This record gives sequence, structure tokens and C-alpha cells, in this order.
Amino acid sequence: MEGSTAPEAKATVLRVAAISGSLRRGSANTGLIRAAKEICEESIPGLIIDHVDISDLPLLNTDLEVDGGFPPAVESFRAKVRAADCFLFASPEYNYSISGPLKNALDWGSRPPNCWADRAAAILSASGGSGGSRSQYHIRQVGVFLDIHFINKPEAFIKAHQPPKKFDSDGNLIDRETKEQLRKILLSLQAFALRLQSKPANSEQAT
Amino acid sequence: MEGSTAPEAKATVLRVAAISGSLRRGSANTGLIRAAKEICEESIPGLIIDHVDISDLPLLNTDLEVDGGFPPAVESFRAKVRAADCFLFASPEYNYSISGPLKNALDWGSRPPNCWADRAAAILSASGGSGGSRSQYHIRQVGVFLDIHFINKPEAFIKAHQPPKKFDSDGNLIDRETKEQLRKILLSLQAFALRLQSKPANSEQAT
Amino acid sequence: MEGSTAPEAKATVLRVAAISGSLRRGSANTGLIRAAKEICEESIPGLIIDHVDISDLPLLNTDLEVDGGFPPAVESFRAKVRAADCFLFASPEYNYSISGPLKNALDWGSRPPNCWADRAAAILSASGGSGGSRSQYHIRQVGVFLDIHFINKPEAFIKAHQPPKKFDSDGNLIDRETKEQLRKILLSLQAFALRLQSKPANSEQAT
Amino acid sequence: MEGSTAPEAKATVLRVAAISGSLRRGSANTGLIRAAKEICEESIPGLIIDHVDISDLPLLNTDLEVDGGFPPAVESFRAKVRAADCFLFASPEYNYSISGPLKNALDWGSRPPNCWADRAAAILSASGGSGGSRSQYHIRQVGVFLDIHFINKPEAFIKAHQPPKKFDSDGNLIDRETKEQLRKILLSLQAFALRLQSKPANSEQAT
Repeated sequence: MEGSTAPEAKATVLRVAAISGSLRRGSANTGLIRAAKEICEESIPGLIIDHVDISDLPLLNTDLEVDGGFPPAVESFRAKVRAADCFLFASPEYNYSISGPLKNALDWGSRPPNCWADRAAAILSASGGSGGSRSQYHIRQVGVFLDIHFINKPEAFIKAHQPPKKFDSDGNLIDRETKEQLRKILLSLQAFALRLQSKPANSEQAT
Repeated sequence: MEGSTAPEAKATVLRVAAISGSLRRGSANTGLIRAAKEICEESIPGLIIDHVDISDLPLLNTDLEVDGGFPPAVESFRAKVRAADCFLFASPEYNYSISGPLKNALDWGSRPPNCWADRAAAILSASGGSGGSRSQYHIRQVGVFLDIHFINKPEAFIKAHQPPKKFDSDGNLIDRETKEQLRKILLSLQAFALRLQSKPANSEQAT
Repeated sequence: MEGSTAPEAKATVLRVAAISGSLRRGSANTGLIRAAKEICEESIPGLIIDHVDISDLPLLNTDLEVDGGFPPAVESFRAKVRAADCFLFASPEYNYSISGPLKNALDWGSRPPNCWADRAAAILSASGGSGGSRSQYHIRQVGVFLDIHFINKPEAFIKAHQPPKKFDSDGNLIDRETKEQLRKILLSLQAFALRLQSKPANSEQAT
Repeated sequence: MEGSTAPEAKATVLRVAAISGSLRRGSANTGLIRAAKEICEESIPGLIIDHVDISDLPLLNTDLEVDGGFPPAVESFRAKVRAADCFLFASPEYNYSISGPLKNALDWGSRPPNCWADRAAAILSASGGSGGSRSQYHIRQVGVFLDIHFINKPEAFIKAHQPPKKFDSDGNLIDRETKEQLRKILLSLQAFALRLQSKPANSEQAT
């Protein structure tokens, strides 16, 4: 496919702001983002993963907004979200929903003007039980208000504690099959983001 | 805008399969579909509403599928769904969720091969209380599996029983402001459907 | 425990209206209800399962209500719901939500006067993927409006298609471990229903 | 009712840990908790509201747990949750879900051993749009895992920005009708908590 693409096409590079909802060092979810970054570098031209850290964000409190300005950590975070072409969420399931830190980050990014609007996104989750699915549908509902367009398929519910062993003790993804699953999601995200960026058929025909 | 569009552009006509989740004669939700049809005929070229009735579908029971065939009412319904370019759901909120008849129709359309896949959709709801919002997020979750791409904005939660009077006793929409709200949703659906149909920027540049 | 209970205590018999959301003959969910009935008969005194069929209910349409009366199949269904002390739902997951037939039954039972109010309930689900969990949280949201009190634990998400084989081709539960899981849910339902039926500590002390 | 109660009955005092999901000074949700406290002091004997502040909790990160111990702010929070007989959540709706700070608090309280288990709770929300309803159903789903028993009725969705003016600029509740709504919820919470605390009918009859 690459071979048949004209030089101009290669210019479409998408930067993905990737956010892990878990703050602990050995997090499998953060490991998924590192793996996604490697996969893109190795085999998905045009898709670049930027890991956006959310651990130093204060708890959301709009009293911290002064004269339309945000605390420095929030400004920095919002700039990264705004600059991204699409999003990748690695979402642990905490108590059948989004983790507190991830919800806090989503909320800071939503303060006017909303930094998330009209971008494509995909969700990964590594978790026990059903692999984090419950957290994903809550994120999708949040995304309606944030105006995020999620890919529908494939979905990734990575059962972190079921054999075969998928992560080492540092949270690095070591399972080939899960890597392949991850790769398919990244390709789907790329395709959907490009589809959303393209001009409507009508306007093209008109010119 | 119309004036500046070339003749070819006019060729992109989208047919919308519109489904009401309420079966009663005087339903406000069915009234929303009639109003949507009128609005499109009057002022939205390229968008055509086809009301798809779901009242004669049997309760879903896969034992009714014989040799890969469906009962006639189901076949007919599935053909209409398959033929549509996008979807409009008018969803009453029954007990904080999707109405039984609408869920039943969504389920019949999903039987392999899934008839809903990869199309844009919008949801309207006329209901008491919060205007049906709870039913809409359940439909959106269903849509993840069905692979439907919903517009995020605007949303319509029409509080049917709050003044001003919005529907007459036959369920006809008589409120100008709600009609304008409806029109914006239809335009958003049209724009999103066209955006999804267009070819990715990459492939266009390549040809 | 039984041995130490006085004769009067034995009088507290709870009748459970058990509803399967799948209508097909070989349904695993209907099989769960048959298994629950057997388990109660064999080893849970005071809990009696009554299977309530929902296959002959019409699609909900309030035009079918005439002079405050319901169609015969609906009247009969509502009487069984009203007579029950608590509820057991066996809920397949259709398209990430409640099955159409089950939602339709929930809706008919909710027509004023609401037949479900203030009773305890438990949910079982046999399904592919994550074992039906998504359907259960939708039922719980419906239950808020219906005023049903669900047990929180244990939950049962029975992965019908994962080894070991859990159901025979007629949908009969044949897996000992799943039966034990079912038994624990029934005991939890019984305990919670009794707890809700008991008089508040205050009023007891007062007499 | 009070008059007919024996002295022992009066001993049943329930302490309610009340948590606001908004951290800003003038929060209407925090105002609801202050109003609830006043209402209980004035007219609901046996129900005492303790406002539990969550603003100094760190973002959840299990690396902060050392030798089974939590950071001081977390220990203090967890002790208050554990000591409570029931819970009152005042939940703003942020982006169609639970606020980040509230989710963070729910998560810290859930770390083993879970501090929330088997207690009754009620939810209030003051918010724009639909009055915060979307956040409440996400909290209820979280509560299934936390083993919280929520009252079903009445629900309170306080449309903070609709007339009549309900809160002054400091977030104090000034609307009589909303106060009465709040009072009914507190009475329902008290009744449900007492009902859950009482001994099952069986065991009483047996002694």
C-alpha cells in the first residue's frame, strides 16, 4: 500500500496524545502506551504516539483558574491535548468506571475552550475481570460531551491477570498476540482519523 | 451555499432510515420523524427521510430464523436498514432506557450479517423528565457493537410535557423552536455522514 | 442454621418470579432458571422459583391498554410479577444491552401501577464475550426507576462459550462450578430479600 | 411517630458521611451538604451529617501505599468513611459523568479493605442541563462494586441554573422547594438505612 502512495500522501502525519489512567510505575496500562509507541515506530508510518503524563495535574477545582489562566501543569497538559490529531486512552477499570486520575485529566482538558473537540480516539484497557470494558463505556459517554469520535472496532479488553503472562513486572507488554491486537487498533484509529479529516465528497466534486 | 455547488455535487443524496421507538398512534417520537421528513423536503437538499415501521416485528427469537432466512417482516425491515445511508432514531425513554420495541428492532437488524454497520446516525428523543437522555446513552452503547457512528452534537432532549406545548394530540410537532433544533441535528447528521463517506485525504492525493 | 430455627421462621417463604430474556428453546439463560429452580428445591428451603414466560407478550404499545385494562397476556404477566416476593433475571447480552424481549417485559410490568416496586432482585447472565455484564448494568439502571433493589454481590457473568462446557445442547446447565456460583447468588438474594422485609430496628424495639 | 417510640429506639443514630464532588468554594453541591446538615439538625432526629472533605487527597496511585499504609490524608479520609453508617454524595456532573475529585475519593476508599461496603447511600446533584442525572448512574454502577445500597426514590436532579434562583453566590441553598426535596431524600435514606440494619424476620422470630 505504501508503495503505491504518492509523495504528498506521506505528508499526512497524525500525532496521537496517549494518556494512561494509572499513575503507578509498573502500570500495565502505561505499558500499553509504550508498546503502542514502539509498534508505530516500527510498522505504522504516519502515526506518532506522544505519551502525555497526567500525574502532576491538581484535582480539578475551577477556583484555580485565575483571569482565564490555568495552573502551569494544567496549561502544559492542555497544550498537548490541543496539539494532538487524535487520542489514545489506556484506561484501567477502577470500581467499574474510569480511574480518578484519568477522569480528572479529561475534566481539565474540557474546561473552555474544550481541548478535545472533533478528534478521533481509541481506548485500550488492561484490567482484571472483564478487561476494563466497564470503564470504556463510561469514557465513551464522556466523549459525547467532549465531542470525541471513538473508533467502534476493534475493542481491546486485555485481561491482565489471565494466562498467558502479558506484562512483565515493570508493566512492559511481552505478549505477541496482544501486540498484534494493539497494532490493529492503531491502524483502525489511523484510518478513522484520516477519514474524519478528509473533505466531504460533495465539496471535492464541486471544485 | 447551494448556488455555488456544481451539478455533480447534487448527486450525493443520502437516504435516512428513521425509526420511532414508540408504537402508539399519537406518539410524539413518531411525530418527530414526520417533522424531520418535512424539514428535509422543504429545506435540506440531499437528505431524504424514510420512515421505517417496526410495529410488526416479532419479539426476537433466533429459532424463527430458518435456513439462514428471517420471517418476512424481519426480512423487509432488514432490507430497509441495509439500504439506508444513515439512521435517525426517535427514542422515547422507557424506564430509564431504550424502549422494548426499539431494542427489539436494533437486535433484529444486528443478526448476521449486521445491517447497521459503518453508518452515521443521530438520535432524537421526546420524553418526560430529562427529555429521554438516559435512553440515548444506552443506544450509543449498543451502537458500539453495531458499528454505528453517532453525531456528538447537537443533542436533542425534547421535554414533551413542559411548556410551551410542542406536540398536538396526534403527536404532530407544532413548536417552531423545536423544529429549528431538529433542523440543526439533521444538518449535522448530513455533514457527518458525508464526512464519513468521503475518501481519506491520502488516497485522494495519491490518485 | 435450619436446625436452630423455630417453626414460625419456616413460614417465611419467598416466591421468586424468574424471567429469561431469551426466547429460543435451547437458551442457556432459560437453562439457568431451570437450574436455579432445581437448586432451590434441593437445598434452599424458603426460596421457590417460578419461571415466568414472556414470549407471548405483544410489543409494548399503550394503545393496547383499553379502559385501564391490558391485553390478556399482559394482565397474566403483570399478575405474576405483582405476586412475587423477589425477582431473578436471566439476561442474555444482545448488542451490549438488555435483550429486546426482556426490555419489553420490564416495560409492560412498569405500566401504572408499577408491578416491580420495592422488591429485591438478582441478575444472572450467560453470554459470549464478557459474560453479559453490559446488559446487567443497563438492567440495574432500569431498576432505579422500577424501584428494584438488586443484590450487589456476588455477580454472575457466565461465559457460555468458554471451556469447560457449561450447557448441553438443550441449554441445561451441566457445570458443577457454575451451579455452585448460582447457589451463592440465590442465597444472597434470599438473605437480601429477608433483610428488606424485616421491620426496622426502631419499630421492633418500640413494640 | 416519634411520640410512640420507646427510649431504646432513640438510640439508633445514623451518622452520614457526606461528600461533595466539587472543590470550589462557592459550589452549589457543597451547599447542598450544608443544607442537608441544617435540615437534619432542625427536623430529622437520628440522622447526623458529617461533611467529609476530599480536597487534600492525592491522585490515586497505589505506589503511595507503603507497607499496607496510606498517606495521612488518605488514612484520615478512609477512617471517616469506615466510621459512617451511610453516605450522601453531592455530585456535580462533569462531562456527563462523575467529577474527577469524587471518583478519586471513591477509589481511595475502595482500596482493600473496602471502606464503603454494605451501607445505604443517597445521591444529590446540582448541575446545569439535566441536573446531573448522568453522573448519578455512573456512581450507582461504581456502587455495585463498592457494595453500596442506594435508595431508588426520590431522586434529586437540581437544575442549578434554571429559575427560580436556588443558590446564592456562596453556594448556599436558598430555595424552599429544593430544601423540601432534600428533606424527603434524607428521610428516605434514613428509612432505608434502618431497614438494612434491622435483623431479618426469620432470625427475630427464631429467638
